[in-house]
Amino acid sequence: MYDIDTFVRVNETRLLDELKQLLRIPSVSTNPEHAGDCRRAGEWLAEHFRALGCSSVELKASETHPVVVADGPKCPGKATVLVYGHYDVQPPDPLDLWDTPPFEPVVRDGNLYARGATDDKGQVFSIIKAYEAVIRDSAPPVNVRFLIEGQEESGSAVLFDLLEREPDLVDADAVLVADTPYYAPGWPAVETGLRGLCYAEITVRTLKGDLHSGLYGGVAPNAHEALVQILTQLKSPKGRIKIPGLYEAVARPTRQEREAWNSLPFKLQKFMRQEVGSRELTGLTRYSVFERLWALPTLDIHGISGGFTGEGAKTVIPAVASAKVSLRLVPNQRARTVQRQLARAVKQVAPRYADVKVDFIHGADPVVVDATGPHIQLIDKAFREVEGRGVVPIRSGGSIPIVPALGKKGAPVILSGVGLPDDGLHAPNEKLAVEQFFKGVRVFGRFLELAGQ
Amino acid sequence: MYDIDTFVRVNETRLLDELKQLLRIPSVSTNPEHAGDCRRAGEWLAEHFRALGCSSVELKASETHPVVVADGPKCPGKATVLVYGHYDVQPPDPLDLWDTPPFEPVVRDGNLYARGATDDKGQVFSIIKAYEAVIRDSAPPVNVRFLIEGQEESGSAVLFDLLEREPDLVDADAVLVADTPYYAPGWPAVETGLRGLCYAEITVRTLKGDLHSGLYGGVAPNAHEALVQILTQLKSPKGRIKIPGLYEAVARPTRQEREAWNSLPFKLQKFMRQEVGSRELTGLTRYSVFERLWALPTLDIHGISGGFTGEGAKTVIPAVASAKVSLRLVPNQRARTVQRQLARAVKQVAPRYADVKVDFIHGADPVVVDATGPHIQLIDKAFREVEGRGVVPIRSGGSIPIVPALGKKGAPVILSGVGLPDDGLHAPNEKLAVEQFFKGVRVFGRFLELAGQ
Repeated sequence: MYDIDTFVRVNETRLLDELKQLLRIPSVSTNPEHAGDCRRAGEWLAEHFRALGCSSVELKASETHPVVVADGPKCPGKATVLVYGHYDVQPPDPLDLWDTPPFEPVVRDGNLYARGATDDKGQVFSIIKAYEAVIRDSAPPVNVRFLIEGQEESGSAVLFDLLEREPDLVDADAVLVADTPYYAPGWPAVETGLRGLCYAEITVRTLKGDLHSGLYGGVAPNAHEALVQILTQLKSPKGRIKIPGLYEAVARPTRQEREAWNSLPFKLQKFMRQEVGSRELTGLTRYSVFERLWALPTLDIHGISGGFTGEGAKTVIPAVASAKVSLRLVPNQRARTVQRQLARAVKQVAPRYADVKVDFIHGADPVVVDATGPHIQLIDKAFREVEGRGVVPIRSGGSIPIVPALGKKGAPVILSGVGLPDDGLHAPNEKLAVEQFFKGVRVFGRFLELAGQ
Repeated sequence: MYDIDTFVRVNETRLLDELKQLLRIPSVSTNPEHAGDCRRAGEWLAEHFRALGCSSVELKASETHPVVVADGPKCPGKATVLVYGHYDVQPPDPLDLWDTPPFEPVVRDGNLYARGATDDKGQVFSIIKAYEAVIRDSAPPVNVRFLIEGQEESGSAVLFDLLEREPDLVDADAVLVADTPYYAPGWPAVETGLRGLCYAEITVRTLKGDLHSGLYGGVAPNAHEALVQILTQLKSPKGRIKIPGLYEAVARPTRQEREAWNSLPFKLQKFMRQEVGSRELTGLTRYSVFERLWALPTLDIHGISGGFTGEGAKTVIPAVASAKVSLRLVPNQRARTVQRQLARAVKQVAPRYADVKVDFIHGADPVVVDATGPHIQLIDKAFREVEGRGVVPIRSGGSIPIVPALGKKGAPVILSGVGLPDDGLHAPNEKLAVEQFFKGVRVFGRFLELAGQ
């Protein structure tokens, strides 16, 4: 422990400065305008791995969103840990809700604020620095391969293709992924399941072109009216998703899991008021909050476009309206099946006067991870030493589409991060607590040492 | 007739070029960024009236959206015609649907395309040019006052205030307003009623801030979901507006009116497919199309903002969503009453978990105009001479908020324009048929001659 602690203490400022460099690159993968920035983030990492002394560093499979593959110095006879992470980030919108610009990282009250601070640049960087800590003054304790992609937020197509072509890339004894948070401050967690995703855009056309609501209001079909009718028919006000067949494949969590969740420390009022920031919770209230978050599918509307949303008043009957929506999926749903179910449901409930189309933007199957293997014991031990408490097994409501492919060669996938639940990932003012970042360096450094023993 | 016809024939190119100058000014009154352009349009008109030889030209009541008041040379003993129009225009969005830029007027296939071509720059300019035609080579036949405002599309607040302070501005024998279209090509019309307007923005907040739909989907209230639930509860799929009390004040048109409307030439399929451009008509189908357009209130959604509508996929639970909506009002509804009814209805149907606010952007009472007075006979005669057919009495579904104030001193208000129903006002590719513009010069010139006899 002493060496890693010293490393962190001595290098605090430099480590944060390096992370800030990476955070300054607006590598938004869902927006083609930022393709160059994604490339730049990949190159920055490759350069960093070279400086660390990695024996092989490559940018693979894409000019614009390359996968960074970096192997540390070889240690014959030792185990191999595959570290997965992503350098791409979510779009920063709405920009006006950020207290400081999303790509100008700044530390305030012990938190580092920037888009990507926790998801995932800050977390994966804590593993990179952990590796630096354990190889700096001694022989590497373990073989390490980094696999850092640039499309996690937009479906991971490049990495999926790469792993199809080069399956040996995931040949390892364990896969470490730091892209999920603690259960609560002081409560490190290991994720035993991730929800899947089905992200779609529903577009409605009712007219050849926009019309004047004075001249045609009363007879001309309004695209927004058709769209809101469709959307309200997909989900009841009580939170039941009304897509035929959707719940059929849903597997309830085991009694054991539910009991484990029920024994987690949880304060409903605090969660609701402070973390969610609402007056009530919604959804299927006959299930526990944890079941609603981790074990039940959801349907959310993300935004609606079309018509007039500028300043002032424009009395237009919109001809076209579209909504971005997504479903989170749970075991044993399949993204492909849900796509078909959603498309069919939308067409069934659409008013006759509307032309409707459903485009799928991306999807991911849900993931179940075995939390009982020996490597889970190692991360548990590392957290016990650093944090004073081992990992609790929970699920995550989020999705990391590539996880099943990472474990395809049989390596156990350890989903365990150092972010906190209030980090605001995907939201304005995303942050990572500076203390958690340094804890990450210490925990993951210790894990790498243990994995090599 | 001969002189005006000659004037038009000789000056065709110049008249169009002058109108294009005015159309090039992007005088969008609902957008504060265009305040300078509104001022510029007012100044352009003032300069134009001075060049015409008007005896008094003033920009009144506002630095940014002045009312242009111009009096022609005095003709003692003659009647006074007040000409009302507006130089402001609707926003041009969505820009990508325009075949040519909205503020670069161009003639194509006999139509002049530009924002404001028909609403109202082109139409009011045809009266200005008509006046030029009748005063050019002879003594003015009649006293004319032009009152051209810059806020018709955003509530006419400046002109309302001005007429409160200077009621004599509308002291006239007749008011001529060319801001409404023909009933159909070859069928000039006089409007006997205009619908009123209640334009509002409904804003919903469900969370302190946006959240990640993976981490909180299933329990966190989604602002868009609350908003679409509210919107669908304000109107049934069959077109009945479900705002309590809304229909109580509605006066059905008289049997005479309904019979007149039923005798108008009307081809449902052509109207629906070509003019409206839809597969079906919506609304209260047990009433005729004319009743739905002219004599029943409507509710339209114009646009919805909040959340994420950019390129790609962002999995956000929006904290705030807002919708621009408006109701068209009919005799004997009052805009103030409808505001209260709408605000109350929104609050009644809003989900408990949502904070809701309704802001009113602008309003106008509906208007009834007497179509039997002597000045209607004059415009009828002018149209008979130029078009070969007199005016048919119809109503308009649109709103011109200032009309009641224009008639406050007792002058009959003549609502009769030269646009065509397919001009696309408030929509992309707004146009005015060049032939209709020149007809306007001839008809209104003849009307001014007749009004002075």
